[in-house]
Amino acid sequence: MPSSLTVVGSIAFDAVETPAGSRPRLLGGSAVHFALASALFAETRVVGPVGDDFGEAEYAVLRDRGVVTDDIEQVAGGRTFFWSGRYARDVNQRETLQTDLNVFEAFEPKLSAASAAADHLFLANIQPDLQRTVREQCDAARFTAMDSMNLWIDIAHASLVRTIGLVDCLIVNDAEIKQLTDEPNLVRAAREALAMGPSVVVAKQGEYGASMFTADGVFALPAFPTADVVDPTGAGDTFAGGFMGYVAAHATDGPPDDELLRRAMAHGTALASFNVEAFGTERTATVTLDEVTERVDALGRMTTFAPQPVA
Amino acid sequence: MPSSLTVVGSIAFDAVETPAGSRPRLLGGSAVHFALASALFAETRVVGPVGDDFGEAEYAVLRDRGVVTDDIEQVAGGRTFFWSGRYARDVNQRETLQTDLNVFEAFEPKLSAASAAADHLFLANIQPDLQRTVREQCDAARFTAMDSMNLWIDIAHASLVRTIGLVDCLIVNDAEIKQLTDEPNLVRAAREALAMGPSVVVAKQGEYGASMFTADGVFALPAFPTADVVDPTGAGDTFAGGFMGYVAAHATDGPPDDELLRRAMAHGTALASFNVEAFGTERTATVTLDEVTERVDALGRMTTFAPQPVA
Repeated sequence: MPSSLTVVGSIAFDAVETPAGSRPRLLGGSAVHFALASALFAETRVVGPVGDDFGEAEYAVLRDRGVVTDDIEQVAGGRTFFWSGRYARDVNQRETLQTDLNVFEAFEPKLSAASAAADHLFLANIQPDLQRTVREQCDAARFTAMDSMNLWIDIAHASLVRTIGLVDCLIVNDAEIKQLTDEPNLVRAAREALAMGPSVVVAKQGEYGASMFTADGVFALPAFPTADVVDPTGAGDTFAGGFMGYVAAHATDGPPDDELLRRAMAHGTALASFNVEAFGTERTATVTLDEVTERVDALGRMTTFAPQPVA
Repeated sequence: MPSSLTVVGSIAFDAVETPAGSRPRLLGGSAVHFALASALFAETRVVGPVGDDFGEAEYAVLRDRGVVTDDIEQVAGGRTFFWSGRYARDVNQRETLQTDLNVFEAFEPKLSAASAAADHLFLANIQPDLQRTVREQCDAARFTAMDSMNLWIDIAHASLVRTIGLVDCLIVNDAEIKQLTDEPNLVRAAREALAMGPSVVVAKQGEYGASMFTADGVFALPAFPTADVVDPTGAGDTFAGGFMGYVAAHATDGPPDDELLRRAMAHGTALASFNVEAFGTERTATVTLDEVTERVDALGRMTTFAPQPVA
């Protein structure tokens, strides 16, 4: 039976201003960015709420990629989560202009039997109590991962730590791992996060790439260098989608081994680089497996050295 | 004939406060940090000024590593360059408390015949006009590199660009490459820096590692992960020293090829990780080639992945 993957998280409309231009209404949200990447590798079901304004065009983007949208909950009379932000000339700097939670405010994840039966699960950034209720509905999951954010570290730390204790893999920004553990050194912070329960901790480092910490040690990859950053929104979710989709697609009976996790990091990194090269989901929605593989191969070449001279 | 390497730059006393403790008087300066790393690989001559307060104990640190100190100019009645700084709990943040240029203020590099005849040259961060006078004295140099800083980009941009046009390799912080070229995207910024003349541009990225840009493309390495950061002062100079020393030691008739430059990046990265694990030059002054090689090998393992599943 092929692997299946469920992602629970936000589905949104985004308005962004970047040095490359502005767009008033883009399909976005962490679960959407994640699913468009993961579905390249493994069947992906999205669980999340939308409003009446979420229409056929938006569903089509997901379905055209093979994403299963049965568990997208359309809330009658509601409006879809809306976020707007402005990126500086250095797109690594951004400010949030507006956040309207809308239907996301009262979201209580309800998983269908099919979504709950997925063997891989990703809990995108939502309130950690909710993440835990989802985790508990997914008994069959063989590999589970989660994201979070500074807000929950601030106001729901104990709940977040409990949730982290229930997943196999934590995928958050490096600054968040440091904040979570109150430890400014990333190596020490990652060790402390591993001690909370996960066997894998991935630190997303934005333009610098990502590092993975496991019992096997450290693995680190730079971001795929791109001269054409149009809109970084969703890059981290796209990375997580590529990572989890690849893990799901190559799952064997046991937990993913170090080699598989490394390749998954590379595929997430490649996907994220496509994501930033166009507004919203435009590029990720259409990128092909061949294009991703080409960047993974290039990433391999640009990170390899022979430690000693070859005779 | 074995390769030789000349470095021109600051020799200093540093006072630092870090979360690990404070030290009122440490041997420091960019040329010192550089030379203690490079001399592991290639004979290194230091050119720079010191005052009466620079004594036998300081010379001994350099000489014990094999650094040639003949061109250290002792200025009678002068005091050695002094810098003091305080690192935050997150040691990636620091503030300068005091800078006394002292003998460095009127420094005019005078190279002995032996220093000028070196086949490898590193111009540490000094005023770009001075860097150029040194560069012009070193006709025999087969591979030359330089550092700089935000101050010179601000107040001596044209002179700096002229100097960059005379070297083979620019080694600066990523933020400095962006500032130099007024281009916030590192890939584009590095291309513009390459267009100024160098065939190699290395972006130092602090805790995130370093990236190298050449006509062959991009090569990137994470920093060697260390849980024990005691004092980051001089890490960038130590990186440059390891890089240039390794290039000098393995020089062939032509310019360094991509494979050699990659290995040099790895050796610089390993050296820098030792530098930060103790105050001042304490660790770099005593680290052995075997210890460095061990970290280079470990760095190779922690950055390698098989792009596709191995059957």
